[in-house]
Amino acid sequence: MTKVADQWLRDILILLAQNRTVTRAEILEVTGYNPASVSHALRYLTRAGVILKVGKLESKAGRRQEILQINADAGFLAAIDLEGSKIRFALTNLVGDVRYRWEEEVRVGEALDGRRVVHGLQRVFANLSSEQRGRVLAIGVCHPGFQNRDGCVTAINIGWNDFPIREQLVRAYALPVFLEGAHQTYVQAERWLGTARHARNCVYVIVGQGIGAGCFVDDHLLEGASGVGGEFGHVVSDPEAPDQCTCGRRGCLEAIASAPNIVRQYVEATTRGRSKVMREVDLAFLLDEARHNEPTALKVVDRAARSLGIALSQLVQILSPELIVLGGDIVSGQDLFLPRIRTVLASFVTPKLGDAVRITVSSLGLDIGLKGAAAMAFRRSILDSKLLREQICGPIAAMQRADGRKSRKSSADSSSKPG
Amino acid sequence: MTKVADQWLRDILILLAQNRTVTRAEILEVTGYNPASVSHALRYLTRAGVILKVGKLESKAGRRQEILQINADAGFLAAIDLEGSKIRFALTNLVGDVRYRWEEEVRVGEALDGRRVVHGLQRVFANLSSEQRGRVLAIGVCHPGFQNRDGCVTAINIGWNDFPIREQLVRAYALPVFLEGAHQTYVQAERWLGTARHARNCVYVIVGQGIGAGCFVDDHLLEGASGVGGEFGHVVSDPEAPDQCTCGRRGCLEAIASAPNIVRQYVEATTRGRSKVMREVDLAFLLDEARHNEPTALKVVDRAARSLGIALSQLVQILSPELIVLGGDIVSGQDLFLPRIRTVLASFVTPKLGDAVRITVSSLGLDIGLKGAAAMAFRRSILDSKLLREQICGPIAAMQRADGRKSRKSSADSSSKPG
Repeated sequence: MTKVADQWLRDILILLAQNRTVTRAEILEVTGYNPASVSHALRYLTRAGVILKVGKLESKAGRRQEILQINADAGFLAAIDLEGSKIRFALTNLVGDVRYRWEEEVRVGEALDGRRVVHGLQRVFANLSSEQRGRVLAIGVCHPGFQNRDGCVTAINIGWNDFPIREQLVRAYALPVFLEGAHQTYVQAERWLGTARHARNCVYVIVGQGIGAGCFVDDHLLEGASGVGGEFGHVVSDPEAPDQCTCGRRGCLEAIASAPNIVRQYVEATTRGRSKVMREVDLAFLLDEARHNEPTALKVVDRAARSLGIALSQLVQILSPELIVLGGDIVSGQDLFLPRIRTVLASFVTPKLGDAVRITVSSLGLDIGLKGAAAMAFRRSILDSKLLREQICGPIAAMQRADGRKSRKSSADSSSKPG
Repeated sequence: MTKVADQWLRDILILLAQNRTVTRAEILEVTGYNPASVSHALRYLTRAGVILKVGKLESKAGRRQEILQINADAGFLAAIDLEGSKIRFALTNLVGDVRYRWEEEVRVGEALDGRRVVHGLQRVFANLSSEQRGRVLAIGVCHPGFQNRDGCVTAINIGWNDFPIREQLVRAYALPVFLEGAHQTYVQAERWLGTARHARNCVYVIVGQGIGAGCFVDDHLLEGASGVGGEFGHVVSDPEAPDQCTCGRRGCLEAIASAPNIVRQYVEATTRGRSKVMREVDLAFLLDEARHNEPTALKVVDRAARSLGIALSQLVQILSPELIVLGGDIVSGQDLFLPRIRTVLASFVTPKLGDAVRITVSSLGLDIGLKGAAAMAFRRSILDSKLLREQICGPIAAMQRADGRKSRKSSADSSSKPG
C-alpha cells in the first residue's frame, strides 16, 4: 500500500481546522490531490481518531457526500500570553476552544519572574487525567518584544533580556514549545479562528497602549528580513507632526493614535493655559465626550482616525489586503473610529485596492493572544513531521488500539459466558 | 525504483537556476531532502540533460564534491516586453542570457496593434533550427496594466481593453504563455538574475515615467487581494502636498518623485513670473544643474528624494525587506538620489529594520522586462508538472535517446568494420 504522505495529512488537517466541517469533494477541490490519495489520507486520519465523520450530505447528483470534521478534543494545546498587564494561561482543544484558563496579575514596570510563567501553567494542567495529559501536543507562547533562534525572549516591558523561556518550559513539561511575537500571534488568531478565516490577505492592527500589525500575504505570515514585519506603529503617517514618539522620532502613527496618546492630546488641549491637569481623563471618558459632540474630544478623535486612515492607506497600497481587523482599545470606540477611518482610507487609496479591502473590528476579545498561541502551536505541530506522526496521529492511534483490544476482550468475555 | 517526485526536481532546478553552480552537499542542506532522493533526482536531471556535472571540489574531509550546473542552453524561453516606449522581443536560454533580440517602436498615445506583438516574436524564432525551436519551453510576457484570469490585458497606455494576448500567442506558437504585470516582472528579474539573487525579502522600485514596486516577501512574490500588491506610486507620502496626481488625488509619491514630475517642479519654479516656458528641460539637464549646485534643481531633487525616502520608510516598516533595488530613470541620478534617500530613510525607520535593509540601484538595464519575463516563464514551467516532465525533462531526454541510438549505431558501424 502507498505510504500516506505527510503533505496530504497536513493539507487536510489545516483545511479541517479552518473550516470545521468539510466534504470529501471540497478536500479534493482545494488540495488538488487525486481521489485515491485523499481517501487513503482520510482513512489514516479517521483511524488515528483525529477526524470524524459527522453526517452525510445529499448531493444534487444523488450521491451522498460524507461530512468530515476535526475531532476537536482529540488533542489539547497549552497557551501562555505574556503581553499586557496580566500573564494568561489556557488549555484549548484543537479548534481553539478554551477548556481551562488561569491568569495572574503582573506589576507594571517590574521585571517578570520567569518561574511564575513556568509554574502558572501547572494550574491549567492540574485538572487533567494522566491520559488527557498525554494528549497535550505542545505549548504556544505569545510574547512581547523579540525572540532569538534559541527561544530566548527580550522584551523591555516585562524586563526580560534573552530570557530562556523555551528551554525552561521544555525542561518543566517535556513538550514542544513554540514562541511567537504578539502581533504575529494576533493575526494568526484572526486568520485561523476569527474574522479572517476566509481571507488569505489580511492584516490585524492592534491600537492600544501601542500600535502594531501582523499580516498574512497570500496566506503566508509576513516575517520580513528582521523577523518582525509589520512594525506598523512606527510608520511615519505625518512627517511634519510634532508628536514625540517613545522610539525617539516624531510623527510616528503610535505617537498620534495609540490610546495613551489620544488621551494625552485631549489633556493637553483641555488644560492649555490652566494650571489644573485633568488627571481623571481616560479613553472611555474621552470617547463619551466625543459621542456628546464635545469639540476638543471630537478633534482628537478626528486627528487619530485621520492618522490611522493615512497609515492604513499606505499599508493597503503596498500589501493590498482583503481584510483589515482592528483590535485593542479602539474596539470600544469603533462607532466613532470606523466611519472616520473608512472615509480617510477611501480618499487615500487607489480605487481598485480600496474596493478590494474591508475593514472591521476583532471579535476575539481578551483571549486573542491565548487563542492565537494555541492555533499557532497546533499549526507548527502539524508542520513538524515527527510531531504530526507521533503526537497528533500517534498516541491517539495507540489509544484506539488499546480500546480495540479492550472491546475485543470484553466481547470475548461475553462470548465465553454460557448462552 | 522510487518515482522521482516533481517537488525534488523543482527545488533542485530552482536552486541551480538561482546559483548557477551548486554542490550536492549544498542541495542536501538547502532542500533538507534525504541523500537517496537527491541522488535519484540528480541522476534523472542529468540523464534528461537539464543539468551538467562541471567539475569537482576538494572538500576539507578529502571527499571530492561534484559541482553541478544548469545546462543553460538545454532550453529556450521567448520573452516579450510591452512596457514603455518600445515592444521588445527576446529569446533567452534557461539562465536569462539573451540569445536573440528584436525591438519595434511604438507610437505613444496610439493603440498598439496586437498583431504586431504576435508577428514580432517570429523575428527571434527565425534563426532557430527546427530542433532548437522544439526546445523553446514557453513564452513570457511583461505587460503594463492588468490581466484577467483568461489572459486578457487591459492597459491604458497601449490602448488595450481586455485584449486576448495569451490566446493569440498560444494560437500562433502552440506554446504555453505566461503573463505578468511589469512591476512583478521586474522584481522577478532582480530576484532570479540580478542583485537580489540572495535576498528572500526584496523590493524593486521603478522611478521613471511613473513609480511602482514589486515585492518578494519571505521568498514569495507579493500579489495581494487585488493581484497588484505594490501600488507604490500612489502611496500618499505627504498628505498635505498640493501636487496633483494623474490618479486624481493629491500627495501621491508619483506626483512628486516620478521623472516627469521632477522636471515639472523645476520648470514651474524656474519659469515662475516669467512668460517664457523652458521647454528644453529634461531630467538629464536638471540633474546636471543639481550637480553644479544650482539651488532650484537641488531643491527639486531634495524634495523628490525626501518623498521617496518617506514612502520607502513606510514600506520598510511594513515589509522589512533586506534589499531595495531602485530602477528606471533614477539610476542616471543615483549619485544625487541615493545618499539623500538613505539619510531620509534612516531618520524615519525603526533602527532594527533600518539596519537590516540595504538600498542600491538595478544593474539589469533596459532588458529587465525581457529577462524578468523569461525567468518568470521558466519558473512557471518548472511549477507545472506536465511542462516539467514533458517539456523541460522530456524532449531533451528524447533527444538524448536519439543521440544514444545514433552513437550506438555509429559504434555498431565501427565495430562491424573489419578489425
